[in-house]
Amino acid sequence: MRPSFTLLRTDGAARRGQIQTTRGTIETPAFMACATAATVKALSPDQVHATGAEIILSNTYHLMLRPGAERIRRLGGLHEFMKWPWPILTDSGGYQVMSLSELAKITEQGVTFRSHVDGSAHELTPERAVEIQALLGSDIQMVLDECTPFPATREVAEASMQRSMRWAERARAAFLKRTDVNGLGQFGIVQGSIYPELRTRSLEALLPLDFEGHAVGGLAVGEGQEAMFTVLDGIVPLMPQEKPRYLMGVGKPDDIVGSVMRGIDLFDCVLPTRSGRHGQAFTWDGPVNLKNARFAEDLSPLDPDSECPASSLYSRAYLHHLVRSGEMLGAVLLSWHNLAFFQTVLRGLRLAIERGEGQRFSRGFLERYRPLRAEFA
Amino acid sequence: MRPSFTLLRTDGAARRGQIQTTRGTIETPAFMACATAATVKALSPDQVHATGAEIILSNTYHLMLRPGAERIRRLGGLHEFMKWPWPILTDSGGYQVMSLSELAKITEQGVTFRSHVDGSAHELTPERAVEIQALLGSDIQMVLDECTPFPATREVAEASMQRSMRWAERARAAFLKRTDVNGLGQFGIVQGSIYPELRTRSLEALLPLDFEGHAVGGLAVGEGQEAMFTVLDGIVPLMPQEKPRYLMGVGKPDDIVGSVMRGIDLFDCVLPTRSGRHGQAFTWDGPVNLKNARFAEDLSPLDPDSECPASSLYSRAYLHHLVRSGEMLGAVLLSWHNLAFFQTVLRGLRLAIERGEGQRFSRGFLERYRPLRAEFA
Repeated sequence: MRPSFTLLRTDGAARRGQIQTTRGTIETPAFMACATAATVKALSPDQVHATGAEIILSNTYHLMLRPGAERIRRLGGLHEFMKWPWPILTDSGGYQVMSLSELAKITEQGVTFRSHVDGSAHELTPERAVEIQALLGSDIQMVLDECTPFPATREVAEASMQRSMRWAERARAAFLKRTDVNGLGQFGIVQGSIYPELRTRSLEALLPLDFEGHAVGGLAVGEGQEAMFTVLDGIVPLMPQEKPRYLMGVGKPDDIVGSVMRGIDLFDCVLPTRSGRHGQAFTWDGPVNLKNARFAEDLSPLDPDSECPASSLYSRAYLHHLVRSGEMLGAVLLSWHNLAFFQTVLRGLRLAIERGEGQRFSRGFLERYRPLRAEFA
Repeated sequence: MRPSFTLLRTDGAARRGQIQTTRGTIETPAFMACATAATVKALSPDQVHATGAEIILSNTYHLMLRPGAERIRRLGGLHEFMKWPWPILTDSGGYQVMSLSELAKITEQGVTFRSHVDGSAHELTPERAVEIQALLGSDIQMVLDECTPFPATREVAEASMQRSMRWAERARAAFLKRTDVNGLGQFGIVQGSIYPELRTRSLEALLPLDFEGHAVGGLAVGEGQEAMFTVLDGIVPLMPQEKPRYLMGVGKPDDIVGSVMRGIDLFDCVLPTRSGRHGQAFTWDGPVNLKNARFAEDLSPLDPDSECPASSLYSRAYLHHLVRSGEMLGAVLLSWHNLAFFQTVLRGLRLAIERGEGQRFSRGFLERYRPLRAEFA
């Protein structure tokens, strides 16, 4: 059985659903914490799971270079390696190859590049990306795509999208041929930059391949929230109702709320953990920087109603002290709190959609409507 | 009621006891994790407590500079600030002033220096060290002493010891005059470098002051284990039986085992957490560096019998990957494991002394006798 999707109810364009996998059910809309190099940075799996996370994302690019996909297979697979027994989605590595590696060269065959870790030469093709993700044993694979630069002319965006669609076809064929992906799934990725017609043609190319889900790629690359929402307004209504929709690399809490209201089910972003390592905390009154002197004697916790100790146990004064002193525990607690905050927002969204109150939640959230915290708990 | 000590039984020079404080009982011999700047580096209080730690040590020097003792008092005291409700011992700051601060000048009155954090001018006197520790609310204070350099001639060591003894008298008077130290205690510190007669005279100077416990200071400063044990062999038998004995800044597991066998009850050291941040783990087969390539596919955990997840859940291969990748979780897990390992060794020592098998434990430990792990659990 491949992962499947159950649509529980809709509220306007917003959807409340479930993704069933052999490793557990994911209540959607859902946010995936990023476990880039087989660890959600600074946190243990039980801390991540305690925030309510039901699925995490890990990175093919990082893991193929270190410790290597074959090694992870020998060690029992990614879940066993990092002691995360719940679902894992892996990206295809395409984005990181272009942003992190050296001497990346794209041909119709795939991408060759040198590792940013040790300079070693590597090749990533649609087929190899499938193989690596199968070796990792991830529950949901992403197809290798070409990361269209932004901004891109229509011509560049079209050529790039078309190559990604040819790659998607190769990736799907490679995936379906494998005997070690029972129970696992694969998502296709809609490309086409900010051009509605290209997005539509991209989706049309993916549909016959019958992926277990569809992602919207190539956004959150500098186009801004308004342009991103415009793309979603155009393409999401055309995406199959009966399959999950994943907006890759998004985003800020207000990006997520707005995208859920447009019909997106799944998100991932490094923002909560990266911000946490830099002293920033997300709160129901907006983001705050704990370095700020105004927190030096602030005895209030970041979110007194949270079940996460990082949110409710420690005072802002203590977090301020940890951040100012460069103490690792500051990064740990703020990463943990931020993940818990994101999960709380997603839980609030799920509850609001169930009640048909998605619009009210969305409006209240964007106005930083503090009482929401209690109302949608 | 000041903290008190109950001697439960002896085994040769080794002692099994309890320190009673208003915040809880400490089973001795005991190891104190270092919470230098109001945090055991990289770990949350519940992780530290889960290792079996019943008391931690925090640093007057660091806290007086940041966030400041008066601020911590306003925030409810150190226990409340860092959410560690169990006993805390604080040092006097003397050691760090000499090793970390700038432009430190010692006079009979005390020490003036500039902060290594922001260059601000400060003074630390025996009386001010008492006041700071009272503001922090630590359960056990240490008197301010002069950190005798090593090596030191007999003349230098004698003059330094005598000043420390005059300071100890002032510190005790200041402590007993305070009205905000009910239930709290103060330890005197025996100095005198490697000179047995100076050590004896130092102890004799402290005895009339009736401290709640005595520390041996000025060791683990480069003299080596043999010289350290020689000092202990000379002075510990003269120390009062009815009060706890604390060997400051010690040490490696074999230092601790050897010192317990010589009658020491209490230890502190940054070694487990500092080593953990540098990829080193303590095991029943001796210390290992997880960076080493031989761990790349080692599926065994660091200590399968441990209750600490950092010791028993994760494979050495995963820890190797985290350390190699510079991931914060590597520092967290190795710090946690090392603290758990130290606590397990101390628990083994306590059990061995209760059974009159201290010598067997000590011999077995120093021969890296693996089966000990199961036998003294």
